[in-house]
Amino acid sequence: MSSSSAAPGRGDKAVKPPMRDALVAAAFRLFLERGYEETTVDDIVALAGVGRRSFFRYFPSKEDVVFPDHERCLAEMTAFLAASAADDEPVRRVCDAARLVLRMYAENPAFSVQRYHLTKKVPGLRAYELSVVWRYERALARYLRTRFAGLGDGVLRADVIAAAVVAAHNNALRSWLRSDGKGDAQAAVDHALGHVQAAFGATPAPPVTQGPEDVVVVVSRRGAPLWRVVQELESALGRG
Amino acid sequence: MSSSSAAPGRGDKAVKPPMRDALVAAAFRLFLERGYEETTVDDIVALAGVGRRSFFRYFPSKEDVVFPDHERCLAEMTAFLAASAADDEPVRRVCDAARLVLRMYAENPAFSVQRYHLTKKVPGLRAYELSVVWRYERALARYLRTRFAGLGDGVLRADVIAAAVVAAHNNALRSWLRSDGKGDAQAAVDHALGHVQAAFGATPAPPVTQGPEDVVVVVSRRGAPLWRVVQELESALGRG
Repeated sequence: MSSSSAAPGRGDKAVKPPMRDALVAAAFRLFLERGYEETTVDDIVALAGVGRRSFFRYFPSKEDVVFPDHERCLAEMTAFLAASAADDEPVRRVCDAARLVLRMYAENPAFSVQRYHLTKKVPGLRAYELSVVWRYERALARYLRTRFAGLGDGVLRADVIAAAVVAAHNNALRSWLRSDGKGDAQAAVDHALGHVQAAFGATPAPPVTQGPEDVVVVVSRRGAPLWRVVQELESALGRG
Repeated sequence: MSSSSAAPGRGDKAVKPPMRDALVAAAFRLFLERGYEETTVDDIVALAGVGRRSFFRYFPSKEDVVFPDHERCLAEMTAFLAASAADDEPVRRVCDAARLVLRMYAENPAFSVQRYHLTKKVPGLRAYELSVVWRYERALARYLRTRFAGLGDGVLRADVIAAAVVAAHNNALRSWLRSDGKGDAQAAVDHALGHVQAAFGATPAPPVTQGPEDVVVVVSRRGAPLWRVVQELESALGRG
């Protein structure tokens, strides 16, 4: 499975019709040749050989054609979080949800790197990207708020962890994009998210075989914040 | 010092000329009466009794008049961080820097609450606000990156902590704005930032006699009620 072409969405032709792909390809060719501001929707549809209405059927605005896969990825993330089990460790779960975004970028490195350079140059695209990142962060926070509903400062904890996950993910993603998509994006994101799990996540409980009379032993540094110890304890007791 | 009026910037007339204040007051009166989109810069200057060029001397665009104090606050934050001492605890320092933003909002509760409701209704203003929040976050991260320069994963840690500080600050700020500026904004932000300091800051070492490797071991039956285990734990940690 080669990812060297700049045409996006090679992995899932079934859900993205060829016309949509053709519009994205035409748009990026023009953005790179002439610049983003200098390219109009009319230029894009002329190159793709379709009408204006076809463009707006797929993309509400010229900005949206730059980020053709975020809506799908947001929907995937929301579905993934909604399908969580009650005993999923919540911080691990939101880290796994963030990995869906990485996967979308890594599906097509050349396209992602081109877009990264384009976005850096155009303030309007930067603003668009910030609003997308905000929506991912809110999706993660909503899930965590539900999971932390019974705990003290549940909403605060949810918001802080969601922001930390997004920041760690984006730190690794940007490093990878700056390296022109070389290197192992997944390993970089795993490392970055591991940092957040170490700060906020519960340590996985060891497998227990002793039966109903077994005991739970929690060993904690005296200086550890109490809420983190309680979180560990809940997870060890299987009530997290 | 009453803060009940919606006129902004009552605290520092010296740096904000009356004409600038008059433009902000006129703009907000019209935004609230007619709506943001329906108000033009011409409407604003007509009500304020000044010319268009005066408006653009103070504000690059109509969006900027909605957030008249962020540039000043960003400059203050940058100066505050630049003036840090080498032995300032870095996480505490960025928390103190974030408190400058809270102070700006709390200087004029009625104005801040009005703007909060306006921003929620206008997507363009929401995008503008996200870009401002991003600039605060980058200012905090830049300082932390310098402080963590010699440490492993210094850039990653800096980015994650900056995001966590901003999320905690904004969680408290939004709660206060949603309560119509009632309640103690500073106490709420202190509490929220305390959460981040507990997770990431250098914990001030408690008076320890057993040595630095001090751990607490709690042994509990798996069937024990969680509250009783937590009670035991608190007592073992000396925080009951």
